Amino acid sequence: MPFHDRPQFPRGFHCASRNVGLKPSAKDLALFASDVDAAAAAVFTRNHFPGAPVILGRETIRGGVLRGIVVNSKVSNVATGAAGVENARRMAAAAATELGTSADRMLVSSTGVIGVSLPIEKIERGIHGIADDLQDDPLVGAEGIMTTDTYAKALSIGAGDATITWVAKGSGMIEPNMATMLSYIFTDAALDARTLDRMLRDAVSLSFNMLSVDGDTSTSDTCAILANGLAGPVDEALFYEALLVGCVRMTEMLARDGEGAEHLLRVTVNGAADDAEARRVSKSIVNSPLVKTMVHGADPNVGRLLMAVGKCFECEIHPESTDAWINGYQVVREGTRLDFDEAVVRAALAVEVVDIEVRLGVGDGVATAYGCDLTKAYIDENAAYFSS
Amino acid sequence: MPFHDRPQFPRGFHCASRNVGLKPSAKDLALFASDVDAAAAAVFTRNHFPGAPVILGRETIRGGVLRGIVVNSKVSNVATGAAGVENARRMAAAAATELGTSADRMLVSSTGVIGVSLPIEKIERGIHGIADDLQDDPLVGAEGIMTTDTYAKALSIGAGDATITWVAKGSGMIEPNMATMLSYIFTDAALDARTLDRMLRDAVSLSFNMLSVDGDTSTSDTCAILANGLAGPVDEALFYEALLVGCVRMTEMLARDGEGAEHLLRVTVNGAADDAEARRVSKSIVNSPLVKTMVHGADPNVGRLLMAVGKCFECEIHPESTDAWINGYQVVREGTRLDFDEAVVRAALAVEVVDIEVRLGVGDGVATAYGCDLTKAYIDENAAYFSS
Repeated sequence: MPFHDRPQFPRGFHCASRNVGLKPSAKDLALFASDVDAAAAAVFTRNHFPGAPVILGRETIRGGVLRGIVVNSKVSNVATGAAGVENARRMAAAAATELGTSADRMLVSSTGVIGVSLPIEKIERGIHGIADDLQDDPLVGAEGIMTTDTYAKALSIGAGDATITWVAKGSGMIEPNMATMLSYIFTDAALDARTLDRMLRDAVSLSFNMLSVDGDTSTSDTCAILANGLAGPVDEALFYEALLVGCVRMTEMLARDGEGAEHLLRVTVNGAADDAEARRVSKSIVNSPLVKTMVHGADPNVGRLLMAVGKCFECEIHPESTDAWINGYQVVREGTRLDFDEAVVRAALAVEVVDIEVRLGVGDGVATAYGCDLTKAYIDENAAYFSS
Repeated sequence: MPFHDRPQFPRGFHCASRNVGLKPSAKDLALFASDVDAAAAAVFTRNHFPGAPVILGRETIRGGVLRGIVVNSKVSNVATGAAGVENARRMAAAAATELGTSADRMLVSSTGVIGVSLPIEKIERGIHGIADDLQDDPLVGAEGIMTTDTYAKALSIGAGDATITWVAKGSGMIEPNMATMLSYIFTDAALDARTLDRMLRDAVSLSFNMLSVDGDTSTSDTCAILANGLAGPVDEALFYEALLVGCVRMTEMLARDGEGAEHLLRVTVNGAADDAEARRVSKSIVNSPLVKTMVHGADPNVGRLLMAVGKCFECEIHPESTDAWINGYQVVREGTRLDFDEAVVRAALAVEVVDIEVRLGVGDGVATAYGCDLTKAYIDENAAYFSS
């Protein structure tokens, strides 16, 4: 299922982006719009301190219909109390006026520093007239939601007569630096909100929810899908397959562009007691600072893999049935480190994409987690906030 | 309850340390010995891949009696199969011969790289004659178990007529770099093994088990207590109080000397639903890479505290009752970041010991977790293993 060489929007979707004065000069606001109402679904952060846009978004998405999405960066509008929610409503209303729709059909996202009031007047002034800028390149919208992602991230793929397009931002050097993930999915397939919701949750559980740059859960994470139906009905199985493939690919792009990252780390666990335990173990490995620094240094210190598996206390794990591979090269058999050629393992770790596979030999549970190495650039990006 | 200015052993305890050829020249083997059999208890790592010394140690400690402890560094004897356990037994036997006791009264520890065979012949040769080196300064033993701890760690304190002495190593730049914790406690109080076991578990749950440098659980963690009774009976409540005070102090020493650390981070959570939830939230904060880098940079990005509290999905947390302080300065009230003086908070973060307090306003649960900041030196220490 090939991705388009250059991302394109499905029928009837457009976007625009601007600098509205939150950042010195870089773009800090984006608008995504459908020509017609779209069935919609969304998932949000599970953090107990959701941002005001997430609080509002949960209310908005209940209607199952969206006309567009408006996003600002630099200030996340989190931990800002009732005034924050009111500011999010004003942002939705301003964007709705531009698109000739009602505020309850606009999804709002904000990403940036926590606990600072949203400069809503600047945003309202900046939104005014933005409908005139709407155009057809999803990368323009992707650029508008970038923080310090190193490049704008968009993808598109065909699914029968329909197209599915992803626009996302990842774990760049935005001030709170918390791998804040915003991912918007647009399609012209005709699917109802309930079906979209089910498909989105299934796909997210296998992709974005298996992504971790640092184990810190953002207060702003949002993943939404809009289906405007302009391409008519699609084969649901085919559509889901394309949706999942694209979600996984975008997850890999976000992981590879994690703060300071130099490697994409993919960890697959097979043979766990169930999928939940496979997810737990694969996340433990992909989040382990010692595994991440091992990959960073291409250092064949593979005992760390067993340490990271073994610290999943609540999972069923038997050393005598545990095997592990790095990029196809077996390094652990039956819980014991093999007497491998260190130069070969060093070489296997030195490539850009490092695949780690662990077989637990317990049951049928499988999962893959996505992450990156841990580098000094992560420290640089996160230890100074006023000075950057 | 004042600690002694210079650590000293209780009556009847001695130690020695040597280089036996595992490292180029630094000491790599230590022996701790009691003149008489001591009642003993120990707790070990919960990692599913315990080292061979841990497997043997669990068997040994069942007897409730120890004469001594023998420890090597450089090679941890983990993931080494049945041969590894046999090597641990040989190490116990060699040390027992020196002390004129049986192997089942010797506790063995090994710390270092995972998955490499223990050079048991070197160790046996090195142990031969070591009883002649036994002397009375616990720091000599502490030096023998150091890896790249920046200094040798020992403490002692009086408890009535008895003395309690701690010798520990922490999270230095030993090759696997996994905050491998070994902590041995010696006392001349007369206490039986069952009482020691209960007291040790209680004290450890409030001290060493609340320590985290990087969230990675060593395969070798061991904490043991030996009571040889030479000071006679003690008041148990008084003894437990001294035991707990010393365990907490040693935990702080280990945290402050965590890999690359420049700050000790102490996180107290009050008002959680119960103590277990308080432990969960305090660990989440002390382990958060974004909180750790914030402390490293003395960057008043305090929204990260709420993020780290909020990602404890399974805990009862209400933004409207959540407050937070940094070194006594309130930065969050009712889930909202206060409009504080950034220079003051920056100054509060710039000191060596950073105390973070979070009140959840839910129940009576309390816990304190101990950790350190995350620095580039952590990356340096962990990304290169062959080259260091």
